[in-house]
Order: sequence, then structure tokens, then C-alpha cells
Amino acid sequence: MSLVPEQEATISPEAVAFIKNITALDTSSDASVDGWRKAFQAHEDVIEESLVKRFDLRLTHTVLEGVPVLVIDPPTVKPEMEGKACFNIHGGSFVLGTGRERNALLTAGEYGVRVYSVEYTLSPEAHFPVAIEQCLSVYRRLVADIDAENIFGQSSSAGGQIMLSMLFRVQQERLPMMKAAVFYTPAVDLTSSGDSSIFNDGRDVISVAALKHCAQQVYLGPSIDPKDLLASPIYADLTPDFPQSIITTGTRDILLSHSVRLYWKVRELGVPVELLVSEGMWHGYHWESELPEAIRVRASTQEGICRLFKN
Amino acid sequence: MSLVPEQEATISPEAVAFIKNITALDTSSDASVDGWRKAFQAHEDVIEESLVKRFDLRLTHTVLEGVPVLVIDPPTVKPEMEGKACFNIHGGSFVLGTGRERNALLTAGEYGVRVYSVEYTLSPEAHFPVAIEQCLSVYRRLVADIDAENIFGQSSSAGGQIMLSMLFRVQQERLPMMKAAVFYTPAVDLTSSGDSSIFNDGRDVISVAALKHCAQQVYLGPSIDPKDLLASPIYADLTPDFPQSIITTGTRDILLSHSVRLYWKVRELGVPVELLVSEGMWHGYHWESELPEAIRVRASTQEGICRLFKN
Repeated sequence: MSLVPEQEATISPEAVAFIKNITALDTSSDASVDGWRKAFQAHEDVIEESLVKRFDLRLTHTVLEGVPVLVIDPPTVKPEMEGKACFNIHGGSFVLGTGRERNALLTAGEYGVRVYSVEYTLSPEAHFPVAIEQCLSVYRRLVADIDAENIFGQSSSAGGQIMLSMLFRVQQERLPMMKAAVFYTPAVDLTSSGDSSIFNDGRDVISVAALKHCAQQVYLGPSIDPKDLLASPIYADLTPDFPQSIITTGTRDILLSHSVRLYWKVRELGVPVELLVSEGMWHGYHWESELPEAIRVRASTQEGICRLFKN
Repeated sequence: MSLVPEQEATISPEAVAFIKNITALDTSSDASVDGWRKAFQAHEDVIEESLVKRFDLRLTHTVLEGVPVLVIDPPTVKPEMEGKACFNIHGGSFVLGTGRERNALLTAGEYGVRVYSVEYTLSPEAHFPVAIEQCLSVYRRLVADIDAENIFGQSSSAGGQIMLSMLFRVQQERLPMMKAAVFYTPAVDLTSSGDSSIFNDGRDVISVAALKHCAQQVYLGPSIDPKDLLASPIYADLTPDFPQSIITTGTRDILLSHSVRLYWKVRELGVPVELLVSEGMWHGYHWESELPEAIRVRASTQEGICRLFKN
């Protein structure tokens, strides 16, 4: 993608290089999901293995309530994270990614905290609302073992839809509520509504058509109305016991409008919420381990989570 | 301007009607500044007079340190605003507007607080840095009479550049610092850098070319480098006694990137700062008295200012 000098002037040289190399992946046909997944994972495997090595992380595959969960432990738990746990829901447009994703590894390493990363069943192998039910089962089990006051949630992109719908279910079932939640460039409206679906389409790492295909055709399927409250939880009636939240996005994110709308929704519940918008940043930029803007946004969420645990 | 259903779905019907009626004003030639000012003010006069009447405001023209200032008093001061004052710097691309602008009137009426609204000399009658010096003179006088802890600043658009540069000067001169500052869709970088200068150009109430003409040609003039620290105070070295701040913008604002960058700059000083981004909103939307998104953002800034005064 091309950038003009006015855009290059306000982002890091690393971000300039990244954007110039963007070629949006083609996920617009059913047949390509398998191919896309292989190419994506081959690329991620190398990065994930280097992060495991760099932070000296210990990975344990387990099964909780029938759902595979990857438990990621740092070599030492940081004092402020003693007794705490991160509940992670990865992104990947509902069709790709694993519990070992970069963001889960970065949080284990940078925060110095144990991460429970749910390996929910991807689509098209499973469909809505399976991923939400699986995450809810794991959460129900976790809060039986760990004080919910010591748990913070973390999700990226499609994981944001799963997280928000799960929290809606947590409220409906009156389960203990997690202390805080971080939503990194979340998807919370699968109807593809929003201003940024228009102005950022063609400027991001994924197109609206591709995301819509994955979300509506592959994940929801033809029988689910995208405006279903669990499919697009931005429309759900949340209650004020919603966790204190941090939401991150960037001006290039096709889902910028999702973050903005989620911010106001949480704020209007009377719940403390912070919106971190990064200049010129794209969908999912937060998981780039060496990108200055990503380092800054991760440090800011980490600082926020530590502060919320202290309150 | 046109909107697609995906955009209409996430904003108020009032906002849809507003955007459909936008015809960006032509300010691209020197000759038009005078004509634009007349048309603009004729339109504003009607609205301003109705706001004065609606809130039963008392307007007093005065001169402080040689600078005209409009003092706006509500019929009764709200209890939480007892002894407080708002220092207002209006917007208008440096070439138009008066101290009686809507935002000053709305704050006097809605907060129930006295507003000092500076009638700085517009361009081309005066040039940079006259407006900044005039505002600084008024501020210097105000803090001689009123405890700076009881003053909050408020600025819109071009007024944001004047406010931020003035605060930089306040820091350099070690004058008492105001308690808090609100920046409504501020302009803080007159080099016209930023991602939103590209993706929102043509989608907003003013074009980048028009704004650039007013800021660079009419206000700064040919001899001033737009990267001068007082011209583009986003590049200035601010210090941690900067006031706690609230910054508002919208996803359609051509200056969205200014707000985003100012947020991080203030945050990195260790100063509490809030960024309020409204879905689908344009440059200066906050001053629409009946627009739901504007009512919400004004209520949120008011709530924030009241909280900051309590701390």
C-alpha cells in the first residue's frame, strides 16, 4: 500500500515499512480458508516459536470442561501479577489462529502472568455459537478455581466478539465477573455496520468483504441473523457489573467504529473504560512485538490492568 | 454528501440529515475570506441569539490587557461551578468566528458557569502569533484575579492550536497553570500532517485545502515555518504540569489524527487525559445544540470537568 509524506510524518519508520508491504489476504471464497490457514500458520509458527524462546515460556496443553486450553507460564511471575490470571481469546476472523497466538505469548512474557488461552473450535469445522459456549465453559471452570477478582480477560479482533458475547452470558447466568477486560481491535458487530467499514476498507490488512465472508458465511452461516444479540453483542443489553475495560484501535483499523461504539456502550453503563487509538495503525497492530506503536499500546494496557488490580 | 446504510446504521437520524446536507465551504482563495465570514456570521447570529435567549445569558463586552473579551454569565451559577471560570478560545480556521460562538454559550448555559471568551484578532487582519499573545495576556490577567485552580480552558478547532501554544507559553513563563483543559476537535499541527488529512478529506465540513489555505497562507503567512513550535505545538516540549485534559473528535473529523496524537503526548507527560471519539462525527460537531452525539459529548466533558474540580 502507498503512503503520502503527510501520513509517513506521524508514524514510526517501522510502521511505514509495514504498511508499504501490506497485501490484503484473499479470504473471499470458501475454498481458500484451508489454504489461507496453512500459509498464515506457517508464518506465525516461526514468530511464535521465537517469542516462546525469547520469554522462556512454558506451554502446557490441557483440557478444561472438554475444551482444549493452552496454559502459558512465564519463567517468573511478576510481583504485581502474583495470584492473577489472564483469560485469552485469540483472533483470526473465526477461521484461523490458535491459542499460541502472539498476543497470548506477549502478555505472558511482558506482564509476567499465567495466561489461559482457549483453543476454541474454528469455523467452518464449528459454527456460531460454539466458540462462545466453549469459552464460557472454560471461564465457568476457571472462576470455580480462581477468584474472579484475580482474572482479567484479553481478546483480539474476532476474539472480541466471542469475549463480549461470553461476558453477556456471564451476566445472564450471574457467574462471578472478571475484574477487567482488554479488547484489542475488537469485532463486536457482525452486520458490518460502521463508518470505518467504508473509509478504511482497502487501507487495512484485511478487507471488509473478506471479514464479512468469514464472519457471516463461514462462522454464522445462512440461518443466523447477524443482528442476533450473541452474534453482534454491541446490541446486547449489558448490565453495570461489566468489567472495567480497555479498548485499543488505530485510525487505519476497518473496525475502528466497533471500538468507538463499544467505548460509549461501556461508559454509559457507568463502568470505567479507556479508549486507546493509535495514529495510522491497522487492524491487529498490537501484536507486532517490535513495532513502537504496538509496544506503547501494550505497555499502556499493562499499566492500566496493574492499576485496576490495585483498586 | 452521501451515506451508505452501513454508515447510517450507527449514527443518529439527526446526524444522517446533517451529513446529507453538507456542502464544504470554499475558502481556497484570499478573496473569499471576507465573503465567507459574512455568510458564516449571518447564519451563526441567528443560532447564537436563540442560545442567548434559551439559556437567558447575560453578555458583557469588556477589555482585558487591551484585548476584547466577552464575559458570558448564566442566570444562576450551578453549585459545583461556584467560584469557577471557563477560559474559552473559539474556532473558525483563524479567519472567522467571535467570542459569542455557540460553544461558549452552550458551556455558560449547560455548565452554569461564567465564561471568558477571548475576542482575539482574526486573520488576515492580524497574523500569527498575535492571537496566541492576546490569549496569553488575557490569561495572565485572569490568573491574577482568579485562582488558576478554579479555571478550566476550552477551545475548538483552530482555538486548540491557540490554546496549546498558549499553555506552552504559560509553562515557559511559569505562570499558574489552569486546572483542566478541553480540546474540541483541535488543530495542533499546521503542517497538515496526519492520517486523517488523507482519509477524511472530502468527507468533512471543511476540506484540507481550505484549512491549509487559512492556516498556512492567511494566518501564518509565507515567512513562518508551519513546523515552528508555536505554530504546530504538537511538536513543543511540554512539561508535566500540563492541565488534565479531555479531547474530543469523531471518525469523520479531518483533524482526528490531531486529537489522537495530542492524547498520547499528554498521556506520556503522566497527565490524566481522556479521548472521546464519536462514531461518524465531523469536525466541530460538538457545538450542534440538539444533535444527540453532541449532547452526549458535551455532557461527558462537563461530567469530566466537574470530577476534575472535585479531585
